[in-house]
Amino acid sequence: MVSTMPTEAERREGKGKPRKAASPSIQPVTTEELLRKAYEPARLAAAYHPFYAGKIEMVPKVPIRDFNDFAIWYTPGVAEPCKTIHKDPEQVYQQTNKWNTIAIVTDGTRILGLGDIGPEAGLPVMEGKGILFKYLGGVDAVPICLGTKDPDEIIQAVKWLAPSFGGINLEDIANPKCFYILERLRAEMPIPVWHDDQQGTATITAAAAINAMKVVGKRLAEVQIAMVGAGAANIAIARLLVGVGAQCKNIIMVDSKGILNPSRAELKEHYPDKWRMCLESNAEGRTGGIREAMKDADLLVAASRPGPGVIHPDWVRGMASTPVVFATANPIPEIWPWEAKEAGAAIVATGRSDFPNQVNNSLGFPGIFRGTLDVRAKTISDGMCIAAAHALAQTAETHGLSPDYIVPTMDDWEVFPREAVAVGRKAIEEGLARIHLSPDELYERAEAIIVRARKQTLMLMRSQFIRNPPVVPQAPPAKAPREAHKAAEPVGRPEHAEA
Amino acid sequence: MVSTMPTEAERREGKGKPRKAASPSIQPVTTEELLRKAYEPARLAAAYHPFYAGKIEMVPKVPIRDFNDFAIWYTPGVAEPCKTIHKDPEQVYQQTNKWNTIAIVTDGTRILGLGDIGPEAGLPVMEGKGILFKYLGGVDAVPICLGTKDPDEIIQAVKWLAPSFGGINLEDIANPKCFYILERLRAEMPIPVWHDDQQGTATITAAAAINAMKVVGKRLAEVQIAMVGAGAANIAIARLLVGVGAQCKNIIMVDSKGILNPSRAELKEHYPDKWRMCLESNAEGRTGGIREAMKDADLLVAASRPGPGVIHPDWVRGMASTPVVFATANPIPEIWPWEAKEAGAAIVATGRSDFPNQVNNSLGFPGIFRGTLDVRAKTISDGMCIAAAHALAQTAETHGLSPDYIVPTMDDWEVFPREAVAVGRKAIEEGLARIHLSPDELYERAEAIIVRARKQTLMLMRSQFIRNPPVVPQAPPAKAPREAHKAAEPVGRPEHAEA
Repeated sequence: MVSTMPTEAERREGKGKPRKAASPSIQPVTTEELLRKAYEPARLAAAYHPFYAGKIEMVPKVPIRDFNDFAIWYTPGVAEPCKTIHKDPEQVYQQTNKWNTIAIVTDGTRILGLGDIGPEAGLPVMEGKGILFKYLGGVDAVPICLGTKDPDEIIQAVKWLAPSFGGINLEDIANPKCFYILERLRAEMPIPVWHDDQQGTATITAAAAINAMKVVGKRLAEVQIAMVGAGAANIAIARLLVGVGAQCKNIIMVDSKGILNPSRAELKEHYPDKWRMCLESNAEGRTGGIREAMKDADLLVAASRPGPGVIHPDWVRGMASTPVVFATANPIPEIWPWEAKEAGAAIVATGRSDFPNQVNNSLGFPGIFRGTLDVRAKTISDGMCIAAAHALAQTAETHGLSPDYIVPTMDDWEVFPREAVAVGRKAIEEGLARIHLSPDELYERAEAIIVRARKQTLMLMRSQFIRNPPVVPQAPPAKAPREAHKAAEPVGRPEHAEA
Repeated sequence: MVSTMPTEAERREGKGKPRKAASPSIQPVTTEELLRKAYEPARLAAAYHPFYAGKIEMVPKVPIRDFNDFAIWYTPGVAEPCKTIHKDPEQVYQQTNKWNTIAIVTDGTRILGLGDIGPEAGLPVMEGKGILFKYLGGVDAVPICLGTKDPDEIIQAVKWLAPSFGGINLEDIANPKCFYILERLRAEMPIPVWHDDQQGTATITAAAAINAMKVVGKRLAEVQIAMVGAGAANIAIARLLVGVGAQCKNIIMVDSKGILNPSRAELKEHYPDKWRMCLESNAEGRTGGIREAMKDADLLVAASRPGPGVIHPDWVRGMASTPVVFATANPIPEIWPWEAKEAGAAIVATGRSDFPNQVNNSLGFPGIFRGTLDVRAKTISDGMCIAAAHALAQTAETHGLSPDYIVPTMDDWEVFPREAVAVGRKAIEEGLARIHLSPDELYERAEAIIVRARKQTLMLMRSQFIRNPPVVPQAPPAKAPREAHKAAEPVGRPEHAEA
């Protein structure tokens, strides 16, 4: 199969080349227009989902030339691979699809920004994630929505699922139990377990921070960091920022009750991870709210609740020189990018694809799982996340950094195999890999698997096994701002609304 | 999409038309030759499985025209179907693939005839079954091999899995816990639960019995039935034979300790289903072994252990006039078909595809699940199994019954949509269906889904997303009988080896 992704050589040639029209405009537009734009995917999603009735399906990977082939794939022939695995359990990775299959597990307690809507209502998200895993990472991902919310039962269920899967992606599980579940499963499972809302978000945010500091010419080890929101995302982001060079004592984290510091003893019992931040961050013992947390900060990482108006421009004015603002709530960032820029922000990143610098989890998990599976790693360590963050950062750097381009976009295809290589190498280095491949082998393997997945989808579309979508009538003319906001408000993903 | 399956009209025209070369030869051949033949799929399976490294994969069912489409299938657009389901839980069947997705669940304790080889070693079988479900029934089936053997934990795990699946196929779970697990899950689950080794085998065997009695001109209600083996299969077969007209008092069932009768009190505590047979079958209170059980029987149903030599020709001679022999153990039936014929058997059925009258589960579950899912039935009742058995029997009758053709073959494609119609109609009649469709609608729907699955596989093969299999060197020349037997012995599926 011929690759349509750029080769290593082509990528090297591209190094430093400025990207043409790489970034969408950051010019101010009206709130109504942006809400209408934000509502467009929702409008199509509402029409398309019942049309397709499912976004992912199973197909054979082996030929069925005639009915006699069933004697090979099923009884009696299939006894052979069974016996082979029984003799040598590791053979399950050679004889079955376990090597490339993961489960996307949720309990439905924190689906998007919609909260605890239950496992059935979470299934559309898990199916969607399944497509991303396949199309971007070549990974076969099975949605598993569990009918229990009890943390220990979730752990038990995932453990029972382990034999047929090569990895587990935890998704949209409420805070704080998600910390406990991930921690125990990472320690106790024989296959890698990942919580995308923690590690995935942290990886791409760390990459954005690395490059932002390069652009403004500051060293992460020295910068002051304000973090707004203390949910699963920001707790993990803080840990990974430290992993890529920031100092925990220089972080000031603020939740809905104020800045985290040792006086917040109410967190001690049920929020051990937040409590640790109370003790280890904020060396100067600052108190107050968001305004105080942002005072003199070089970097703001807001992962809180949809804006605008959560972060005031005045508070940006109170930051250090050439401040960097990550306002990642969806569908509307905590502050409009142009407001932040007007207030002096040198760089602004959001969660939206229609502004520059989209901090987008989908840039992480497909490549990270690809690398993890390809070296058959036992776990996904923070070291592997950090390696992925550096690969993400370097991919963008290859194309030439600018205030409007600090992270790759989805068009930068090579980011996925590059992450796979970085993650695989780190797993080998840390003694976590069960397969040792060279960087070239890792790249070629990842690229081949991903290219196959994309071409397969294209072919299914061309041959109409994936039908064309139905025609959806145009959206009604823009409503008055108030109404438009009402219509759009529950649409998006207040990605980290646990401030 | 144009159907390549015969239409209803074509099928009606075909009624009664004798089938050309419908059945393989029943002429005696040497044991070595048959074992060599039986070993051929195993030889290819051993070479092909590591070549493909998995038999089933996930693909998108929806178009990905560019990266913007991810905003429809994933966040933020995907919140729409989530909210729709949250408002009306039944909408999960319209907005996701739940309507067509089942889990194939095993604990690995009775994989084929290999016994308790563990969940990982069972995965090749579950993947194979997944292909059969898709190719023959259009059903998306996900292999789930559980890391627990405890019956109550298996029940718990399956319950937790329910939200993302439209049905559960239990597979290769040891006897007697499989009875308990199925019974509880059938009663307590909101989606249909099926154990193929019980209900599937029983359905196809009941169909064979119906037609066999037509060919020999006897009434099921009057015949004497000997059953050799009292495992999951024969216990369920007995129940379904009664469902299609046989009388339980006329059944004599024999296990490795002798004929079941009320003196077998040792079964009372741990084998409630066998104990029920002790009380309800064998009205005349017969005692003894297989020979005594078969005395004067019109029908023998052997589901015990691989032969030859398990059933002696002399015992067939002791049966009633025009006796019918089902010898279903794999890879070698309990008695060679020609031996049974020489001893007077009017009809012989086996589990092998290279003899006439293959009693083959794959003729049942794909069509039965198709119909069950298409009417969104709450369970798969015995009534639905019986309806499927009649549809199977009638499909064969349509083609013209003969001693060598009492059950359809895999080439009789229409058997699957016909079962779907019968099962769907019965579910509606019994008040178990959540969707009401006419027989024509049921047929067309089932046919369209199945035809799509087959064409999709064909297209994946033609476009080389399913690669051609590797060339496997010829088998070595036939070995001496003793060695050949040794080589082949662990290959096949002693389907019901729990006599």
